[in-house]
Amino acid sequence: HEIAGVVTEVGSDVKGFKPGDHVAVGTYINSCRDCDNCNNLLENHCSNFVFTFNGVDTDGTVTKGGYSTHIVVHERYCYKIPDGYPLDKAAPLACAGITVYTPMIRHNMNQPGKSLGVIGLGGLGHMAVKFGKAFGLNVTVLSTSESKRDEAINLLGADNFVVSSDKNQMEFLKNSLDFIVDTASGDHPFDPYLALLKVRGTMALVGFPGEIRVHPATLNLGARTLSGSVVGGTKDTQEMINFCAANRIYPNVEVIKIDYINEALERLVNRDVKYRFVIDIESSFK
Amino acid sequence: HEIAGVVTEVGSDVKGFKPGDHVAVGTYINSCRDCDNCNNLLENHCSNFVFTFNGVDTDGTVTKGGYSTHIVVHERYCYKIPDGYPLDKAAPLACAGITVYTPMIRHNMNQPGKSLGVIGLGGLGHMAVKFGKAFGLNVTVLSTSESKRDEAINLLGADNFVVSSDKNQMEFLKNSLDFIVDTASGDHPFDPYLALLKVRGTMALVGFPGEIRVHPATLNLGARTLSGSVVGGTKDTQEMINFCAANRIYPNVEVIKIDYINEALERLVNRDVKYRFVIDIESSFK
Repeated sequence: HEIAGVVTEVGSDVKGFKPGDHVAVGTYINSCRDCDNCNNLLENHCSNFVFTFNGVDTDGTVTKGGYSTHIVVHERYCYKIPDGYPLDKAAPLACAGITVYTPMIRHNMNQPGKSLGVIGLGGLGHMAVKFGKAFGLNVTVLSTSESKRDEAINLLGADNFVVSSDKNQMEFLKNSLDFIVDTASGDHPFDPYLALLKVRGTMALVGFPGEIRVHPATLNLGARTLSGSVVGGTKDTQEMINFCAANRIYPNVEVIKIDYINEALERLVNRDVKYRFVIDIESSFK
Repeated sequence: HEIAGVVTEVGSDVKGFKPGDHVAVGTYINSCRDCDNCNNLLENHCSNFVFTFNGVDTDGTVTKGGYSTHIVVHERYCYKIPDGYPLDKAAPLACAGITVYTPMIRHNMNQPGKSLGVIGLGGLGHMAVKFGKAFGLNVTVLSTSESKRDEAINLLGADNFVVSSDKNQMEFLKNSLDFIVDTASGDHPFDPYLALLKVRGTMALVGFPGEIRVHPATLNLGARTLSGSVVGGTKDTQEMINFCAANRIYPNVEVIKIDYINEALERLVNRDVKYRFVIDIESSFK
């Protein structure tokens, strides 16, 4: 559900695209286009939205997403990829990119000079670091593993790296961050991270751990905010892609062919990917 | 720590008050006046703030709060009670009032036509209902007890009343509220209430239950926000008192003398108070 490709044909009513255009498609390829959420361009929250992969479209078709040579999508759910932006790097923007961009914009995390913590350094987290730097933030990566320090600082440009199991470092960081983007989907405690926020700081949650447990005092005494988010609407998605092109923000990807997919999945489970595998469908069938 | 009284004497540097003025004092009577929080007029979040009752002031004095015939307070932590506003009703504004007003203003819950849910109908909750109506909101009271329906609707002016154990009513209310103020301090589930919020809705937490447990999907899929809050800063407190005076918002109180306090405490434990006891210290010693 993170697809980039080239338009081969357009319907007679299509106005925004023409054959040859580079386009991206994200996690959904349809919605009701009539509810409050659709009208507010938050189609990702439409209760009738159709997943790009393994969803059931209005005509009963089971969607196949990017595991296909071609896909038919209403133009509303297609995004223009600006000239010169590589197709392979554009693909992860359509889910990983928009998933962290949406809450960062919504919660005003684009204020230069403020501080951002990023929990988890995977496909989503590495994009949060890049957006954070592009917004002019002081970025601290919070990771369970010391082994990610070098790449966080030197590859991704984070300003600071903290191992979350190190109590001294965590204590030092308390009440110091304006924002946190929590991309971790594994179960983890919340109080120690929320305690890093300044008064009125915001943690955006984009992962799906098993359960959130928080002591009320952690939220109340610091007037802190925990806010959920999931992908983004069509307007925000196009803006995010344009922002990436304008600011030369590129996801780090490893391009593979389809016959490598089982090995890729194994490496993904072992966290051995920096930071997204992208399947080159066209060359897979040559 | 919710005090209203009359100024008897002012120090030589005091500019804002004179003898005879009616003033309120809230939950804190001192702070460092030098940190970011103090400078942002969020003195309630100063790490050196001094509790009005049973706190230790900078000179080592243990504070006695309103359980005293007189109190000495720096003018920064005193609030003007506008002419004509009854002293007994002014007192609860200084904690109950500001506790719900602060998050309502912070999270833009003062937009006429939007919908508000209020969880818990005690000292805090009944003020949330009154502020909600003054802001022009459609107010739904969520209570564990059907017995509160009449007073919620007819005494406090709520538009709607829902018993939270009634699954049909709760189902009907799903995805319908813009905001919720959760004043309940007893342990309670969070997912059923958060599910009542529309996409991007906000629940403000002002109570202190034992633990918050939330399923991430409840927050993420609706892009919902859970935000903590505790009392308020000096600027907001004065604004809130002025707002109450201008809009004729009065807490419902039962005035007692000090010798009734043990019985009052028993009634408080049994939830038999509408909605705040106020001790009349002056007449208690006549």
